[in-house]
Amino acid sequence: MNIKIRMGMIGGSLDGFIGSVHRMAAALDGKIELVCGAFSSDSNRSIETGNSLYLPADRIYASYEEMILKEAQLPSNVRMQFVSIVTPNFLHANPAALALQHGFHVLCEKPLALSLDEAIKLEKLAKQTCLLFGVTHNYTSYPMVKEARQLIQSGKLGKLRKVIVEYPQGWLAEPIESDGQKQASWRTNPKQAGISCCVGDIGTHAAHLAEYVTDLTIQELSADISTFVDGRLLDDDVNMLLRFEKGVKGLLIATQIAHGEANELKIRVYGESGGIEWLQSNPNFLHIKQNDKPEQILQAGTNHSYLSEQTRLHCRIPAGHPEGYIESMANLYRNFSIAVDSFENKKSINPLFDFPTIEDGVRGMKFIETAISSGKQNAKWLSL
Amino acid sequence: MNIKIRMGMIGGSLDGFIGSVHRMAAALDGKIELVCGAFSSDSNRSIETGNSLYLPADRIYASYEEMILKEAQLPSNVRMQFVSIVTPNFLHANPAALALQHGFHVLCEKPLALSLDEAIKLEKLAKQTCLLFGVTHNYTSYPMVKEARQLIQSGKLGKLRKVIVEYPQGWLAEPIESDGQKQASWRTNPKQAGISCCVGDIGTHAAHLAEYVTDLTIQELSADISTFVDGRLLDDDVNMLLRFEKGVKGLLIATQIAHGEANELKIRVYGESGGIEWLQSNPNFLHIKQNDKPEQILQAGTNHSYLSEQTRLHCRIPAGHPEGYIESMANLYRNFSIAVDSFENKKSINPLFDFPTIEDGVRGMKFIETAISSGKQNAKWLSL
Amino acid sequence: MNIKIRMGMIGGSLDGFIGSVHRMAAALDGKIELVCGAFSSDSNRSIETGNSLYLPADRIYASYEEMILKEAQLPSNVRMQFVSIVTPNFLHANPAALALQHGFHVLCEKPLALSLDEAIKLEKLAKQTCLLFGVTHNYTSYPMVKEARQLIQSGKLGKLRKVIVEYPQGWLAEPIESDGQKQASWRTNPKQAGISCCVGDIGTHAAHLAEYVTDLTIQELSADISTFVDGRLLDDDVNMLLRFEKGVKGLLIATQIAHGEANELKIRVYGESGGIEWLQSNPNFLHIKQNDKPEQILQAGTNHSYLSEQTRLHCRIPAGHPEGYIESMANLYRNFSIAVDSFENKKSINPLFDFPTIEDGVRGMKFIETAISSGKQNAKWLSL
Amino acid sequence: MNIKIRMGMIGGSLDGFIGSVHRMAAALDGKIELVCGAFSSDSNRSIETGNSLYLPADRIYASYEEMILKEAQLPSNVRMQFVSIVTPNFLHANPAALALQHGFHVLCEKPLALSLDEAIKLEKLAKQTCLLFGVTHNYTSYPMVKEARQLIQSGKLGKLRKVIVEYPQGWLAEPIESDGQKQASWRTNPKQAGISCCVGDIGTHAAHLAEYVTDLTIQELSADISTFVDGRLLDDDVNMLLRFEKGVKGLLIATQIAHGEANELKIRVYGESGGIEWLQSNPNFLHIKQNDKPEQILQAGTNHSYLSEQTRLHCRIPAGHPEGYIESMANLYRNFSIAVDSFENKKSINPLFDFPTIEDGVRGMKFIETAISSGKQNAKWLSL
Repeated sequence: MNIKIRMGMIGGSLDGFIGSVHRMAAALDGKIELVCGAFSSDSNRSIETGNSLYLPADRIYASYEEMILKEAQLPSNVRMQFVSIVTPNFLHANPAALALQHGFHVLCEKPLALSLDEAIKLEKLAKQTCLLFGVTHNYTSYPMVKEARQLIQSGKLGKLRKVIVEYPQGWLAEPIESDGQKQASWRTNPKQAGISCCVGDIGTHAAHLAEYVTDLTIQELSADISTFVDGRLLDDDVNMLLRFEKGVKGLLIATQIAHGEANELKIRVYGESGGIEWLQSNPNFLHIKQNDKPEQILQAGTNHSYLSEQTRLHCRIPAGHPEGYIESMANLYRNFSIAVDSFENKKSINPLFDFPTIEDGVRGMKFIETAISSGKQNAKWLSL
Repeated sequence: MNIKIRMGMIGGSLDGFIGSVHRMAAALDGKIELVCGAFSSDSNRSIETGNSLYLPADRIYASYEEMILKEAQLPSNVRMQFVSIVTPNFLHANPAALALQHGFHVLCEKPLALSLDEAIKLEKLAKQTCLLFGVTHNYTSYPMVKEARQLIQSGKLGKLRKVIVEYPQGWLAEPIESDGQKQASWRTNPKQAGISCCVGDIGTHAAHLAEYVTDLTIQELSADISTFVDGRLLDDDVNMLLRFEKGVKGLLIATQIAHGEANELKIRVYGESGGIEWLQSNPNFLHIKQNDKPEQILQAGTNHSYLSEQTRLHCRIPAGHPEGYIESMANLYRNFSIAVDSFENKKSINPLFDFPTIEDGVRGMKFIETAISSGKQNAKWLSL
Repeated sequence: MNIKIRMGMIGGSLDGFIGSVHRMAAALDGKIELVCGAFSSDSNRSIETGNSLYLPADRIYASYEEMILKEAQLPSNVRMQFVSIVTPNFLHANPAALALQHGFHVLCEKPLALSLDEAIKLEKLAKQTCLLFGVTHNYTSYPMVKEARQLIQSGKLGKLRKVIVEYPQGWLAEPIESDGQKQASWRTNPKQAGISCCVGDIGTHAAHLAEYVTDLTIQELSADISTFVDGRLLDDDVNMLLRFEKGVKGLLIATQIAHGEANELKIRVYGESGGIEWLQSNPNFLHIKQNDKPEQILQAGTNHSYLSEQTRLHCRIPAGHPEGYIESMANLYRNFSIAVDSFENKKSINPLFDFPTIEDGVRGMKFIETAISSGKQNAKWLSL
Repeated sequence: MNIKIRMGMIGGSLDGFIGSVHRMAAALDGKIELVCGAFSSDSNRSIETGNSLYLPADRIYASYEEMILKEAQLPSNVRMQFVSIVTPNFLHANPAALALQHGFHVLCEKPLALSLDEAIKLEKLAKQTCLLFGVTHNYTSYPMVKEARQLIQSGKLGKLRKVIVEYPQGWLAEPIESDGQKQASWRTNPKQAGISCCVGDIGTHAAHLAEYVTDLTIQELSADISTFVDGRLLDDDVNMLLRFEKGVKGLLIATQIAHGEANELKIRVYGESGGIEWLQSNPNFLHIKQNDKPEQILQAGTNHSYLSEQTRLHCRIPAGHPEGYIESMANLYRNFSIAVDSFENKKSINPLFDFPTIEDGVRGMKFIETAISSGKQNAKWLSL
């Protein structure tokens, strides 16, 4: 008999935003079941959250340590198979390590850790355990991002030359952390967020997107980093020059003070024979541009045979029925759960169901530390 | 202890498209559990589908009759509470009636029935039983459609004057029903679809949207109806003049032969002091236009305090994280499940969680019959 | 030695809007020289206008009759070669007739006359004189409208099926004619505008565009005509069903009460193998849509070799340097002046430099009368 | 009696592109008359061009020196009043200097000279002569660019924080200079273009736009400069970090190898209370963005009373009738000709009719030299 993949969750209490996004994403395709959780360091809040999710009382835990230890003692066909970690940054590495040590696969929010050192240690541990470790850079799970990568790999754009990736947001344009806005408070608090707010929170998404789509690594960067809001302890804006391998030049913009911008992650890539453009806020379209040819707009949809197989595997419905952010996250969960299932049943995995791994997570941490360091040295070029 | 609302499904086997949309929509918010199903008139296919959905064998039924009768005998805290009917048109009314007769609430795909007579009988039955009956005109469950309605009710546009609603699709531009394409086959087959393909399948969505947004009824219509594809048995295109109450004029376009159009449902409404525009394929935005003022673009998102309370209650995440078609359907399921819960627990329902009811379904059937009749009389004006 | 084509102007005093548009359009390409004018029935205003245009005093006339008679007596290499008539509707036919009778080519604003009868008489006269007669349906002079027509003629869309043409404006949403707004006053005054405001002023543009792009004639129409603004003497809104030759169905919307819409003329045409879309307010782009293919966006520009020869001949600059409304009117003037030059020098004309003629003007009048008549008979189908 | 402002032209023969743009722009508003020209260093081509423009033979010159000397001897009410220089870069400074020395106002294409030194000398000369000197950074003459500047000066965005200006083109993605494409040949030839292609040709437009709109000067820059096309002698791509006065950070992208991009100059500016966005290829719209408010789209048009007075003075027609690139250049010519008229008639000039001056030209040269120098030092920060 088929059974769903069993998931536990660390973090994600009711009063947050990201927990419910992860739960919706996990639930969407009906292949994953939330079986337990330690939703908050406040045990009452954890219980309240678990109740609202219809969890049995004995699978709602007061701490992640308790959850991992107790779940590990449950029968193998009952206990959670993987844990999803959706806590603030400072609570990523320890729960992840403990879960690995007790035999659980891990799906962890980005950035992976508070520091590169911490991340590297975690990576070592993960490799020792041979368990699966996913990182929720969900933007690369959109179907048209897959299509962009496929197109580039197919040679459609020729040899690449230039990448422009930008991630403007406006929500931190004012010091809302002073008013106790929860999302803002921990993200601008070095103890909870680490050395960076803007670069860590959204710059890493942009960098991951750029490397994923082009299949090229950033080799050097020069980052001009700013904190515009008075009294803020971490960065809220960055302009960055990039140099990728193979002579590709680039540019990364990430900002949280771009008034009125919601979540406008966008990438443009140009090669010797064409360019592409994708915008997260209108995610079902991919633009192809070529000199002296009409611009083409590719549209996501299960029914579009002109899309790559991988792209179609990341769509659920025909074109014109827009899929969005939750569906992109659900793609990541779906792919990770396929991997868990394959791992446990010793099946080979179709590489089309890819997801970001701990290596991406470590690279993200390296990106953050390098960018912040460059910023402190007046945008000095540093290797990545 | 909270428990999820229990749903059964009629229709929606694996090889279709709409069943999985409904299941994703029902699953998204974690408040509804699929507990049983009669997914196909082919019992093997029903079992196969039920298995893939992890249902226990004894809750997978070979026919809807069996399901309704057996579920009715289960303990009240085990049996399904409502049934979702996602079959082709000719299999709407009978299962719905049987479900009502056995005490189950019904959520039914549109159009409600094969004929207006059938629909009216069903409506009578529903009223006798006092059970809940929803119809899945899901497009009116988008947050920015709620916003449009709220804006108009608030008087933002002044007295209304003109409505333009259009629903262009291109997927039936060629006779794909001849190639056995499943969706096309039953929709163009009078025995399974009823008297109309285009008007019934998408024209009704457009009409429902227009009446919902304006809170005005269409009083008269003049429909020029065409079948462009040779050999097709039902209509695939309609141009329609509309006259609403209170002197409002309108126009409805629905077509399935508009090559290259995916699912471009769009509405524009103009009043004495402004106009609005909403497009389903970019659903998170609502445009307000006024002479000698900048156009305004309202964006969906839980964080936008300028939106109406109802609009925000139909968003899940902050602006810039696009929600789409599945989320709109999930809104309908969420609202219906709230009503079921309120009904069974004798709680009052917040009217902000509205959904289309059997009255909308009957009106849809009246619209179809009137339009087709007008078309047969050279676009004669007929009352609705 | 080359010399410019010499133009006279009737109407177009400084306090209007359209006169200066025509003068800019005529001046743009440097091939036409304004040599005289009777700019207003108020002779002081005519003089004032002529002075501001640097015309010599003896070429500024107090009336169109004076201008035509006196110019006719000037040496053939001095007198105007054609007259541009930019007066309100009631002052089109008489000046045009007088000009023809005195040997001048005529370029006349639309609609051609106050009535179809008047128009037909003028057409007869024009045919007798064999002189050139252009009508300024300038929207069909945009390069991407030429491209649309060329694409359709090339068979790109296959056999045509459906046309949707719309022309929403909002500027007459309020009774601004009561405030003496000049443009509104004459357009809503039956003595100056004729039997129609909306249909005559913008509906004719939409109809001309539809027939030009498709190369098909409208054979029947059913028009629902409204006057929304209290006290207004003519129509300000129309919804119209169309039937073209060859079984093509269509729909025409023209409105002047669509609050907040500037000048949103738009056409969509669908055939058996594709569709096109063009929008006047973003005129340098033409969209091609086809099932299961990426949408294509063609862009105007002299450098785009994928455009038809005719299209490129109606562009002045490379892509990305937007051309607009004045340039479209300038294309019409350029083409008309080429025809004048060819006529006078007995050269053959390149048919790529086409322009609307008096036949289009007569057809426009027929369209107006038919539509208004249909409207008065409750949108009865009438032949055109 | 009013008379037109008399213009001579240096460069702009028929086989180029930019000459005709300038002539159309000068002709559009009917206030400037082309009276003479030295259109090419090839005297036959100059004559041929002059003939085609209907110039009398004695006002068509074989060289700019001849033109300036001979025109200076004509009566003051006959000779040209200003000269428009539309030659390649290496032929800007000398003709400009000679014109100034003979008492003619100068309107010169950018970049102003081959080097900063040359530009500074020219500036000194211009100041000595007290004559008018305009530079054709025409993009800042678009009405909605004026509006952007006005909005920022009015405080709408609050204290500024961040500027993103970009200018992607694709036309030099391939080595078309090898095929003798005229525009490409001189722009990539150091003898004719100076030390830069991309920065000089379009980077300067972007920098001018950024400084004009914000009214802030760039104080430091760090430029990563590339030549992607093999064998090309000058740069074809730049990514640049900017630091403006008052702590504003910025970013400038200019590229000629962005395949498929036509001429996508775009600026975004963010301040403490809002942001704006303008795109040259859709130039009649200006977007205002603010957190938790609907995005607003301002539209150009003489009839929009919400626009600033200066903005409306740079529109010719009501909203919805798009104006474009030629009209922007015509605004610059119009403003310059008003200044010439005011100068010669000792009238004061309305500052709303502004245009870029030789100081902007010198600043542009400084920008080019600084950027290229930074690029040669691995994107070292340099003061500007």
